[in-house]
Amino acid sequence: MSKRLTRPDLYIVPPPKPTPLVCETLVAEDETGAEKEVFIVNEKPLTVFLNAREVVTAMTIGDHPEWLALGFLANQAMLEADNPVTAVDFDDELGVVVVRTEHPTNFEAAMQKRVRTSGCAQGTVFADVMDHFETRSLEGNATAITTAELSALTAAINTTPSLYLEAGAIHGTVLCTSSKPLVFMEDVGRHNAVDKVAGWMHQTGTTGADKMLYTTGRLTSEMVIKTVMMGIPILVSRSGFTASGVQLARQAGLTLIGRARGERYLAMAHPHRLIRTSASQVA
Amino acid sequence: MSKRLTRPDLYIVPPPKPTPLVCETLVAEDETGAEKEVFIVNEKPLTVFLNAREVVTAMTIGDHPEWLALGFLANQAMLEADNPVTAVDFDDELGVVVVRTEHPTNFEAAMQKRVRTSGCAQGTVFADVMDHFETRSLEGNATAITTAELSALTAAINTTPSLYLEAGAIHGTVLCTSSKPLVFMEDVGRHNAVDKVAGWMHQTGTTGADKMLYTTGRLTSEMVIKTVMMGIPILVSRSGFTASGVQLARQAGLTLIGRARGERYLAMAHPHRLIRTSASQVA
Repeated sequence: MSKRLTRPDLYIVPPPKPTPLVCETLVAEDETGAEKEVFIVNEKPLTVFLNAREVVTAMTIGDHPEWLALGFLANQAMLEADNPVTAVDFDDELGVVVVRTEHPTNFEAAMQKRVRTSGCAQGTVFADVMDHFETRSLEGNATAITTAELSALTAAINTTPSLYLEAGAIHGTVLCTSSKPLVFMEDVGRHNAVDKVAGWMHQTGTTGADKMLYTTGRLTSEMVIKTVMMGIPILVSRSGFTASGVQLARQAGLTLIGRARGERYLAMAHPHRLIRTSASQVA
Repeated sequence: MSKRLTRPDLYIVPPPKPTPLVCETLVAEDETGAEKEVFIVNEKPLTVFLNAREVVTAMTIGDHPEWLALGFLANQAMLEADNPVTAVDFDDELGVVVVRTEHPTNFEAAMQKRVRTSGCAQGTVFADVMDHFETRSLEGNATAITTAELSALTAAINTTPSLYLEAGAIHGTVLCTSSKPLVFMEDVGRHNAVDKVAGWMHQTGTTGADKMLYTTGRLTSEMVIKTVMMGIPILVSRSGFTASGVQLARQAGLTLIGRARGERYLAMAHPHRLIRTSASQVA
């Protein structure tokens, strides 16, 4: 298990240099026929168990497997407030993380029943998350951020050394307050990067209510659902969005900002939490 | 079921204008506080059944659900040559596609056994695909393409009217011969776009051995596995790649070309099928 963090105000960033843990150097041939060394991120299967039940296999770069597993389960509403996590065990050789809880979870009992009656129950698991999502609302949340703060945050994030800058082909997710980035996670899939942030929040007992989440990836329904499950009222991306992502954000009271580049952006849902203050707007 | 295609030489392209089937118009607020109409692609759940067994729920823009289902199952090696597909039924209201075969498939029998013993068996399904992948090799395939042809193809693809050009936040995959694009599919996930192409190939009996596949998305292990399962010897992307994508391509004899923009590219595996001929290389 990763060391318990005692300073949740720390800016946790990707490794400053591509490390063998998550990256390799391979030789490519370019358009002139010349050989060229290229940094490339890893992508290996990690299977998540909740107690004795296999839940999912994710393809991941391989850092922070415990946070990825914890965050995935938390975002799928498979962990319960009154049933604490007692251990998170990672087996590097098998590529397996086992999250253990004090008692069996409702999810396990439900799965046990469902695999007997309706097969793999993937659709049912999806429906379960939606049931939890429907009960969450960020409507009353009073957190706000100014456009000047948003520009400063995205500038800070974009200049943070990252695997993206070194190797590309990777997505980043950053948990921020209105004044600073707190945790910067990267992974081949944008969902994994969000789940790692959620795992960190779960382990450190950090709440989302006064935070903002930034992602390099598209704002799809899954990204919106995860952000709402994390209780974070503002989700920002430099990329675009899908119709259902926008609809779910409108429904849940989530402020959804897409195509955020420099001082430009498109607010797709609940724009009231983003207060226009930066130079270009005042001018 | 989609109309059976009788002209596999047709260039099948996305709808020329965003249609209500796959796209909506929503109102956003931009950085000046002004309202702006934005095209946004849909993203809705589609659950795939193989006979009576639920296999997966994919988030998709919603066009060509039959090809998506067929292609997904074909790429997962769940369809068998001696067990023909007898029907593909799409229920729009339920968001369900049922692919029916003449006899029960080995996959169903195996799943039946596994859900009794090891739960949801997601990891096992992954391992199954890898077993099939290991038996495929494109080593002896003599298909080749010149860099001039590649540049011409990518230029033709990039100027084809598409949802990407209209709405963004979407990936495209194009099946090509060395001289022309054949089928251009788009979806929120790059895997779905590839699966739709695979479904079209399955339905029209089109083989991959003399084709090239182009994708806007990253070259991850899943993209490489699907391309190899489709029997296509050349995979090109304008985006980057992951280490395991490259390793699997090297292992399977697949020509893997990343960061292809204009006349530039990086050949990561088996570059011999790409023959340097274009003006900039001769100069």
